[in-house]
Amino acid sequence: MSTSTADQLAYEVTPTPKATTFPLNQWYVAALSWELKDKPVGRTLLNKPVVLFRMGDGQVAALEDRCCHRALPLSNGTLEEAGVRCGYHGLLFNEVGKCVEIPGQDKIPSKAKVPAYHVRERDQIVWIWFGNEATSAPDCEPPAYDVHSSGRYVFDGSVYHYDAPYQLIHDNLMDLSHLGYVHLKTIGGNARIHMNAEMKIESEGNMVRVVRYMPDSVPPPTYTAAYPFKGNVDRWQEIEFHVSHLRIWTGAVDVGTDAMDAPERGGFHMRGFHGVTPETEITSHYFWTMATNPVSDPDAIKAKVIEQTILTFDEDKEVIEAQFKNMRQFGENPMIDIHVDVGANRARRIIEELKSK
Amino acid sequence: MSTSTADQLAYEVTPTPKATTFPLNQWYVAALSWELKDKPVGRTLLNKPVVLFRMGDGQVAALEDRCCHRALPLSNGTLEEAGVRCGYHGLLFNEVGKCVEIPGQDKIPSKAKVPAYHVRERDQIVWIWFGNEATSAPDCEPPAYDVHSSGRYVFDGSVYHYDAPYQLIHDNLMDLSHLGYVHLKTIGGNARIHMNAEMKIESEGNMVRVVRYMPDSVPPPTYTAAYPFKGNVDRWQEIEFHVSHLRIWTGAVDVGTDAMDAPERGGFHMRGFHGVTPETEITSHYFWTMATNPVSDPDAIKAKVIEQTILTFDEDKEVIEAQFKNMRQFGENPMIDIHVDVGANRARRIIEELKSK
Amino acid sequence: MSTSTADQLAYEVTPTPKATTFPLNQWYVAALSWELKDKPVGRTLLNKPVVLFRMGDGQVAALEDRCCHRALPLSNGTLEEAGVRCGYHGLLFNEVGKCVEIPGQDKIPSKAKVPAYHVRERDQIVWIWFGNEATSAPDCEPPAYDVHSSGRYVFDGSVYHYDAPYQLIHDNLMDLSHLGYVHLKTIGGNARIHMNAEMKIESEGNMVRVVRYMPDSVPPPTYTAAYPFKGNVDRWQEIEFHVSHLRIWTGAVDVGTDAMDAPERGGFHMRGFHGVTPETEITSHYFWTMATNPVSDPDAIKAKVIEQTILTFDEDKEVIEAQFKNMRQFGENPMIDIHVDVGANRARRIIEELKSK
Repeated sequence: MSTSTADQLAYEVTPTPKATTFPLNQWYVAALSWELKDKPVGRTLLNKPVVLFRMGDGQVAALEDRCCHRALPLSNGTLEEAGVRCGYHGLLFNEVGKCVEIPGQDKIPSKAKVPAYHVRERDQIVWIWFGNEATSAPDCEPPAYDVHSSGRYVFDGSVYHYDAPYQLIHDNLMDLSHLGYVHLKTIGGNARIHMNAEMKIESEGNMVRVVRYMPDSVPPPTYTAAYPFKGNVDRWQEIEFHVSHLRIWTGAVDVGTDAMDAPERGGFHMRGFHGVTPETEITSHYFWTMATNPVSDPDAIKAKVIEQTILTFDEDKEVIEAQFKNMRQFGENPMIDIHVDVGANRARRIIEELKSK
Repeated sequence: MSTSTADQLAYEVTPTPKATTFPLNQWYVAALSWELKDKPVGRTLLNKPVVLFRMGDGQVAALEDRCCHRALPLSNGTLEEAGVRCGYHGLLFNEVGKCVEIPGQDKIPSKAKVPAYHVRERDQIVWIWFGNEATSAPDCEPPAYDVHSSGRYVFDGSVYHYDAPYQLIHDNLMDLSHLGYVHLKTIGGNARIHMNAEMKIESEGNMVRVVRYMPDSVPPPTYTAAYPFKGNVDRWQEIEFHVSHLRIWTGAVDVGTDAMDAPERGGFHMRGFHGVTPETEITSHYFWTMATNPVSDPDAIKAKVIEQTILTFDEDKEVIEAQFKNMRQFGENPMIDIHVDVGANRARRIIEELKSK
Repeated sequence: MSTSTADQLAYEVTPTPKATTFPLNQWYVAALSWELKDKPVGRTLLNKPVVLFRMGDGQVAALEDRCCHRALPLSNGTLEEAGVRCGYHGLLFNEVGKCVEIPGQDKIPSKAKVPAYHVRERDQIVWIWFGNEATSAPDCEPPAYDVHSSGRYVFDGSVYHYDAPYQLIHDNLMDLSHLGYVHLKTIGGNARIHMNAEMKIESEGNMVRVVRYMPDSVPPPTYTAAYPFKGNVDRWQEIEFHVSHLRIWTGAVDVGTDAMDAPERGGFHMRGFHGVTPETEITSHYFWTMATNPVSDPDAIKAKVIEQTILTFDEDKEVIEAQFKNMRQFGENPMIDIHVDVGANRARRIIEELKSK
């Protein structure tokens, strides 16, 4: 098989996706830092198969996930000080995609290389930049997330694969009124409280903030399991939408003990990071971490909060995937909007505007 | 996402099926009564995703299985006195599809509704009517099935999902000569007896009746397991095809003790109800019940007959799905007809005529 | 359903493959002899669904895998002295596809027949001939394989189903340099030895031979597990590509005790037969046997060698299927060639030439 015979192969390839329908010139989440250890990780991001790995010095790297020799995914290979070695015939590629060794062959042809992507690691999140053109370099640094680095919180997290488009995950996170119907067993509680809570929505550039307060309300199961509340609580939900991720700070204090909107409020905190990265037009990666401020035994409280978070997110995944399956079944049937959709719709408009750029 | 933005979603929807290829203006089986308890049931019938449920007063209802707000299947929701509540944001719909509550919102827009279907429950069968146009009301009541209500029989039943078009199930049921090759272990027995048995075929409107008598024959395993036959038997098979279901009355008496065609004949009876409802052009729901007249211990005999029936129907499913898989593989290769195909072909002609109306 | 109504069925059939892209007028492997026992075997070969079976006298036969009555695969049927009996209504077909019995019907229509294929059994391999036109008879006998019949070797084998085109399996077998990266645990060993070994490539008609010698090398794990080598070995790999199968003779002697290219060399032998038969353009059957010359306890050594062979071939399957999945994903992106590709590329040119005939 020479470089010109691929088109003689008698199989159909996966159709090239249409002009990408995702906002470009953005930092998207590619991985959580602790995913990149001693093995390369293969992951399709915005329709591009990528291999993510660490060099010997710990630096993160991202290449097209395809050896230029016989197309094996480089993520099937192994890691060395100098890069990733293909698992078929042993070609070795460095962090910029240059082939630096072909076993048994002295001369390395100049074509022996694979495309590299811009990646950065910051506050335990690995970000990848997809620009409008292959060569366009990032024009900013990826965002900080000091919840991971301040030392005030314990946290953990993981990644879900969704059979649903990324914007349905945005919709879900932008409207926590669903807690009362979807998450009764964990963070939900009384549906009426959520549905009737006052909701404040603000925008600032490509950021949308939805804030909801539930004063003097019954704390939900997860809260009482993790914190010694005395009775009813003053509870807040603050949601910040950014194009590639959301930051959600929820929590509560004993009634009347602290202002719900005070930056330095005490009580019980759950601070979620939600990186929503399209895999394809109809599938998504959902990277999350959940951080809490333990009043005592940090390991036990972290374990409890993470366990409850996973139960909650499992419920969301089930709902959103069922929703999308039905949307495909029914096609373009109209949808009606209700009062809780304002924040999600504003986020959708931002995405639409960025896509058309 | 407003009512007009659905078409901006970057995914392909399941293609709308062509003009329906099923006879309309018919009562089809939608469920067996005991399937509808405390949870809604989602089921696609004649290409339409439907949610089936009971209101608080026990009345059955059927709606399009899609919340008009964000498209979650209503079958993911929960039941209340007044209807079905969506499992995402809590919209409540009544038995005619009207939204009667939007939690947290006073005004319910007039567009907040989902289409409803005509359903009736009769003799423990739930029937649904699909007319030629969305609004066309049934012009008759669904058929009675007094085997379920007479008190003379014990019975049970369930539903199979078939990866095969509904007419292949008709073919199978209209020609019981396959018993000798497919069902050796249960109701089959000597293949030659079945193949050589005299067969009488009658039509009456859209009904076809196939009758076959096997006098002085060896009773098959299921028969001897359920009834104390003394030796050989006079055995009958009476098959009645209706457009949406079949009624099959098989049985036997000790040789010479009763006329095989006497309406009040004794002996051992197996009376099958077979509701064959298209799910799509290439998949089907097969609702069945099997009733028997126990000579003694009704629970034990019912259990035995149902166990044998399930073994038998499992064998049919395996054959019919393998047949259809092969038909797709080979396409329009011609088929030859043999002597046993007369009844099935007559049923196929009835369906063809109804489809063209 | 009469012979003319098939086109009224409302489902789509699997699209007929384009003009076949496989070399025809070849004997391909259809089965290993011991696969054909008391049940018919259904297998798609070069896009044609085939039922393989033995007649009562042991003769092998191959028919189109579709009863001409209602299209059930004949491989769902049962075997009798006189042929294969359909598992639905009992039609019996002989070794040339003629229907010789329709139960319950005296006259057998002349159309009651299914196409038959040319098959031969030789040295425990069942070969099938696909000519350019349905009627074209073989112009030669299938090849001998006396490793199976000489009595000097113990052997066993089986068949893999591959989600990959057959030529990717050729590529893999024609270039054993991958042993050092893919098969470290069995027959691999030091990667550099494989990659740097001198390689000799010869062609002769449609045969390509790749020979590689590794004198004074460390024997790999499988070798030392099966043979009492004293230390380093002189090792050989001889690969013979034929259009429908490969013969690979590898082995080793204690350093300096025998010429590596002597026809009657001693030491430890692994002789592989590799029948690679396309199922479709994108899937393949890979029939293999592995033979060895046991120095002692033949059963134990055979078991050890077969166990190691399966581990090795499992690794190949994983790599090749991952490679193909990636090739579909990336489409016609160019590939670069390296030094080890010469033999595989020559085999590809032979296939290209035969396909265009």
